[in-house]
Amino acid sequence: MDEVDAIAELIINYNELNSSVVTELDEEPSPLEFMRFVAKNTPFVVRGAASDWKASQTWSAQSLKEHLADETVNVAVTPAGNADSPSQNSDGTLVFAKPWEEDQPFPSFLDYVIQQEKQPNIPPGEVRYAQTQNDNLRHEYSSLFAHVPPTIPFARIALQSPPDAINLWIGNSLSTTALHKDNYENIYVQILGRKHFVLLPPHCQPAVNERMLKPVRYVRAEEGSELRMGGEEDGGDVPFAIWDPDRPGENRTQYSGMVEPARVTLERGDMLYLPAMWYHKVSQSCSEEGICVAVNYWYDMDFSGPLYPLTNFVRSVNASRNKD
Amino acid sequence: MDEVDAIAELIINYNELNSSVVTELDEEPSPLEFMRFVAKNTPFVVRGAASDWKASQTWSAQSLKEHLADETVNVAVTPAGNADSPSQNSDGTLVFAKPWEEDQPFPSFLDYVIQQEKQPNIPPGEVRYAQTQNDNLRHEYSSLFAHVPPTIPFARIALQSPPDAINLWIGNSLSTTALHKDNYENIYVQILGRKHFVLLPPHCQPAVNERMLKPVRYVRAEEGSELRMGGEEDGGDVPFAIWDPDRPGENRTQYSGMVEPARVTLERGDMLYLPAMWYHKVSQSCSEEGICVAVNYWYDMDFSGPLYPLTNFVRSVNASRNKD
Ligand SMILES: O=C(O)CCC(=O)C(=O)O
Ligand SMILES: O=C(O)CCC(=O)C(=O)O
Repeated sequence: MDEVDAIAELIINYNELNSSVVTELDEEPSPLEFMRFVAKNTPFVVRGAASDWKASQTWSAQSLKEHLADETVNVAVTPAGNADSPSQNSDGTLVFAKPWEEDQPFPSFLDYVIQQEKQPNIPPGEVRYAQTQNDNLRHEYSSLFAHVPPTIPFARIALQSPPDAINLWIGNSLSTTALHKDNYENIYVQILGRKHFVLLPPHCQPAVNERMLKPVRYVRAEEGSELRMGGEEDGGDVPFAIWDPDRPGENRTQYSGMVEPARVTLERGDMLYLPAMWYHKVSQSCSEEGICVAVNYWYDMDFSGPLYPLTNFVRSVNASRNKD
Repeated sequence: MDEVDAIAELIINYNELNSSVVTELDEEPSPLEFMRFVAKNTPFVVRGAASDWKASQTWSAQSLKEHLADETVNVAVTPAGNADSPSQNSDGTLVFAKPWEEDQPFPSFLDYVIQQEKQPNIPPGEVRYAQTQNDNLRHEYSSLFAHVPPTIPFARIALQSPPDAINLWIGNSLSTTALHKDNYENIYVQILGRKHFVLLPPHCQPAVNERMLKPVRYVRAEEGSELRMGGEEDGGDVPFAIWDPDRPGENRTQYSGMVEPARVTLERGDMLYLPAMWYHKVSQSCSEEGICVAVNYWYDMDFSGPLYPLTNFVRSVNASRNKD
């Protein structure tokens, strides 16, 4: 047996012992129940957990515009909804495309998002997504912060820390977040519209075809002009998954066909526990008003114990296989 | 980088993120606190946790002999205290030596154990250890069972099951349990004397020099005769660690020098959480009376989640390296 087989064995062994159907809970877990999921690094969804949050009860396009009538917000702008995604540049090379970031008055940002969603016959222009991921709900959007709990009690108690970041996500169905992973325990809550998650556990790294991609950023040369892809950004190449579980035949590795992605859709008020280091691809559908709004809580993961080093080990063994 | 480096990297990465000093708690953890240790597959010791158990308060050589005055018990007999150990047979081959098992009246078994311990000048004969590991405290020794809790509440609540086995261990300082691992969450409690544990996490498999050994059993041909090593037992070769962290220069692999064994001694009344799949070598010191007595609770481990498949993966990668 060579190490190629060891990776296949790992994927098959995991699949035999674990379901790819995400467990559904009817109510929030206790801290102990939550910790059992953390212990096995396994996701769950709680249907309706956030239904009675003030955000769920009161947010709408209109109320958001009222609350943020005078605010400007940071908006990620891309030609096709591909912020932080592997994308082809003009000569066909795959690069890691970062969005153009622009401050926009919130009401006109939201009008644009809605109009684009509701009038699909108009040729789609650029795609706008408020997705700053920098604890924006406690900063940029702090006037909305009182509408959600300041922390998720079961997670705070189990993980013994306040959330490191609380993020608001506002966009339409043209935005997709490419398959990636974060070193955070993530509690993701849907407020308006729906989110569609495709999930893979950390040991599936050999299936996602991670490549070192040159980072480039879309730029708008002058106000009102179209986006174009800029030159290489500083900071060096970025390791990024180029396999897309929704186009499984493209950019595959010999292991892509073996993994069993878990798929789960969050409806209004649903809450997902997305365990640390899990790969996730996220797409969205809009509410009748034409927006999709979510909030997520990132808690620091515990780097002690065996899982983080073993996840790095899978990557190293796969890298050495690719060098042979 | 080849896969040799990946294993070294794994060991070093783990060592950087984890201490090899076993955490000491002053009191029993709550189920949630316990689950945090289970989640990171990390041991802890609770000093004095069992000090007020009836077993701790009342057991002595005398009281045990009274309780078990009319019982015969199964005793593991070996020439040198090496039950279930890698041992050399007459032609120098390393085999997996299993003990001769014999039913003995409890009082004379205990007298033998004590006498051997207290009179070290008498040339040591065979070594006797009551160590049946088959839930013996609820069967063979059921008259003592009421002297210990029927389960460990924090473990039962966290792991959601009663103990699969509760075992009593009675022996003297000549018995040693060789480095091995069990697929159980283990709560180990010292009642009389002391136990010395040497511990290694599951990913250290490449350091323990696991070999396929022929199983043989010591046999006593007729009553009163000396033990000799019998022929090969049925059931096929047994994978077993042949590296002994207390003789680190012998039978080493290229990784043995990289791992950092954790060492912890349990005194009377101390409790150890020994996480599932951890390698452990166990030796013992006696109470003033010349005996060493412990009780342990095995709870089923959870095979779901990533740790079990990843532990198998380390073994496979190491096996493929050894085949190169
Ligand atoms: O909602 C999205 O578009 C992406 C969410 C995400 O990647 C995250 O919460 O880590
Ligand atoms: O106490 C001993 O000798 C060995 C204990 C052991 O191996 C166990 O509890 O799994």
